[in-house]
Amino acid sequence: MSEPLLRHRAEALYTRLQDEICEALERLDGAARFARDPWERAEGGGGLTRVIADGDVLEKGAVNLSTVHGPAPKQLVEHLQVEAKEFFATGISMIFHPRNPHAPTMHANLRYFETDGGVAWFGGGCDLTPYYLYEEDARHFHETVAASCGRHAVADYPAWKAWCDRYFHLTHRGEARGVGGVFFDHVRDDLEAVLTLQEDLGRSLMPAYAPIVAGRKDAPVTPEQERWHLQRRGRYVEFNLIHDRGTRFGLQTGGRLESILVSMPPRVRWDYCAEPAEGSPEHTLLSLLRGAPREWTRLDGARFP
Amino acid sequence: MSEPLLRHRAEALYTRLQDEICEALERLDGAARFARDPWERAEGGGGLTRVIADGDVLEKGAVNLSTVHGPAPKQLVEHLQVEAKEFFATGISMIFHPRNPHAPTMHANLRYFETDGGVAWFGGGCDLTPYYLYEEDARHFHETVAASCGRHAVADYPAWKAWCDRYFHLTHRGEARGVGGVFFDHVRDDLEAVLTLQEDLGRSLMPAYAPIVAGRKDAPVTPEQERWHLQRRGRYVEFNLIHDRGTRFGLQTGGRLESILVSMPPRVRWDYCAEPAEGSPEHTLLSLLRGAPREWTRLDGARFP
Repeated sequence: MSEPLLRHRAEALYTRLQDEICEALERLDGAARFARDPWERAEGGGGLTRVIADGDVLEKGAVNLSTVHGPAPKQLVEHLQVEAKEFFATGISMIFHPRNPHAPTMHANLRYFETDGGVAWFGGGCDLTPYYLYEEDARHFHETVAASCGRHAVADYPAWKAWCDRYFHLTHRGEARGVGGVFFDHVRDDLEAVLTLQEDLGRSLMPAYAPIVAGRKDAPVTPEQERWHLQRRGRYVEFNLIHDRGTRFGLQTGGRLESILVSMPPRVRWDYCAEPAEGSPEHTLLSLLRGAPREWTRLDGARFP
Repeated sequence: MSEPLLRHRAEALYTRLQDEICEALERLDGAARFARDPWERAEGGGGLTRVIADGDVLEKGAVNLSTVHGPAPKQLVEHLQVEAKEFFATGISMIFHPRNPHAPTMHANLRYFETDGGVAWFGGGCDLTPYYLYEEDARHFHETVAASCGRHAVADYPAWKAWCDRYFHLTHRGEARGVGGVFFDHVRDDLEAVLTLQEDLGRSLMPAYAPIVAGRKDAPVTPEQERWHLQRRGRYVEFNLIHDRGTRFGLQTGGRLESILVSMPPRVRWDYCAEPAEGSPEHTLLSLLRGAPREWTRLDGARFP
């Protein structure tokens, strides 16, 4: 390989983003703080898991940073579908479960991989899971993310938006997890440009998400809305445990369990045949999730200057 | 095949057991009743799902009866690891989540399969999942089940107990789901005798379980015990969605979703790194679940007259 790879700069970026995002959400919450839980991986590397719990706004949230390396486990090679004896992976992943059902959950991650001989790529994405549909919130989230993508020639918002819709789908329910966002993986052309995009996208996450939560955190909540909220969180659990490749791979290969399952919502419930009444706001959301993916931006993938 | 197979008698047995078990638990609960939800399968057959919810004793419970048949789906053939063009399956499965953390969850099922050319077999089992360890409860459950097995030469309590311990294991946690019970499958020698055993075992489930719940249902509960209860229910969700072959197979092949996921506990929670303090009753249970399987019966597999 003729040029140095980006592992150190990627790791440094994710470290900064973790700090910035935790600070932004502590300001938003106003009460709880993110605890710091550093951990080490026996085979090489480690991470810092930061968790917030029982906040005024965030019932639970986590921002995981991990940088791991060493001999590539057989399952990792199969998972990545590449040839590799050694690997290096650094990434940040996050999930936020607000207390108020009118405020959506957001998940995001940014990640960088290297394997033998200078093979390297980026992946990542973010997606929004509302419990009640506020179209202006979905549009704001997508337009902020699309604008970030639009500033970088290496990004492809329409393709990545479609990828996200395909990925975050509960096939056993015939339901989308939420209103989507973007998802991308194995992006390896012009790594410098992708790193720049990742910085921009990482810095766009709070502008995309925090104003939505700020606008909904004090909305009045009925017991019925609360019950619906916890039932829908059950869908989140189902997706993560049944379908999510990262979660399943991590659990199968002995990843750090608590950092993987920190994505689980705090309180959840399952009720038999809990189908919302026609015409209810709950039914409106469910119809959306069961239908074809919608376009949420008027940018139409146009590149921004 | 030279003799008629047992499909009708197995189905009739499971139908009677469903009635008897629901009646026994309604008496135990004293307040809530099992609703009846009949359903049909487009490709052939159907079932009756009976669900109890928000009872005084049972927070949620279900007894599913299903009898399905028709052309054998490709995935079923792979799942069963047999050659089959047609199949017939009848079974009863049940799960009970008491409200009180001192009362354990029980799961059980009994099932009968037929495929082409008179190939037929039985399977089934039952297992107990306590949230607090009462050794006398675990012993009562195992001894009742072992006694039932002991009355039938076709049963093998020690082997089936070990099979149960292997099956209901959360490999990603290194934890048993609970204190086990019995598990068996593909039992096909002397089907008449196995049907007789299934009737005995089915009739032993309430004597094995109901007295335990009756003895614990009014135990005082602290908020900390309640939180632990909901966290442990999370383990139940993890097992069912990550590991349970029946659940995963059902979800992948378009089984009746609500009848499959009715096994989910009603209220659940996940907390980051919620490890109980050394010396606490919660820690006692966890140490047991993380250790080698214990023997719970003094019967030592001896056959009863």
